[in-house]
Amino acid sequence: MLATAVAEARAGLAEGGIPVGAALYGADGTLLGRGHNRRVQDGDPTLHAETAAFRAAGRRHSYRGTTMVTTLSPCWYCSGLVRQFGISRVVIGEARTFHGGHDWLARHGVRIVLLDDTECASMMRDFIRASPELWREDIGDE
Amino acid sequence: MLATAVAEARAGLAEGGIPVGAALYGADGTLLGRGHNRRVQDGDPTLHAETAAFRAAGRRHSYRGTTMVTTLSPCWYCSGLVRQFGISRVVIGEARTFHGGHDWLARHGVRIVLLDDTECASMMRDFIRASPELWREDIGDE
Repeated sequence: MLATAVAEARAGLAEGGIPVGAALYGADGTLLGRGHNRRVQDGDPTLHAETAAFRAAGRRHSYRGTTMVTTLSPCWYCSGLVRQFGISRVVIGEARTFHGGHDWLARHGVRIVLLDDTECASMMRDFIRASPELWREDIGDE
Repeated sequence: MLATAVAEARAGLAEGGIPVGAALYGADGTLLGRGHNRRVQDGDPTLHAETAAFRAAGRRHSYRGTTMVTTLSPCWYCSGLVRQFGISRVVIGEARTFHGGHDWLARHGVRIVLLDDTECASMMRDFIRASPELWREDIGDE
């Protein structure tokens, strides 16, 4: 499942964007939606990878049993999305380059799988080194 | 400032949508963006009132001193947005019909102004009574 999120992150990078990708899967493993950060591409600060994948999955009455897979630890905004809509599990590529709200989610009953994936970490590390201001803008860090 | 958010909520209701409206103001009182819930209108579950107003405000390097005005207590998703991007203050029309994450925001240094506005509360109460399933869908309540 991480491969889909990584492919999204790479697609975002190729478009000149911020390389974070995500995918939402149903309880039976069906892909419901996938997406990547679109701040640069669409000039839209609400489209983080997780919210883009959630949007792509459309309107749903329940998120029970779903898994959000993301290349990077979800920020507070995306962690809030997971908690509000009752997404059951979050699979995280890495939390070395950014540590968001996944400990908080774990405390509130969300199953967290932290993979510590080398490719995800190096992709973000290279991006942050090359575009530190853009990265800070994306996480609201002055 | 609440009047703009209420006008947005009413516009959403007139479009057949969920009547929650919001507006983001700069430190000097300038309106930066306004919007309303667009789940029904756009089939987009990511556009709560607060995220719609935030999107309308475009890309920004800092949210220091900004105020998010919303007709309804912000859910976890929208509370996460406020915390991640460092929005300084949240003015809330009412928290009677739905109690989101504003206590959590207050604990994390966000200034909260809860108005307990009668019009906001009656608009939501009427809506929830008329469309309980749509309301539950919007807050991920099975």
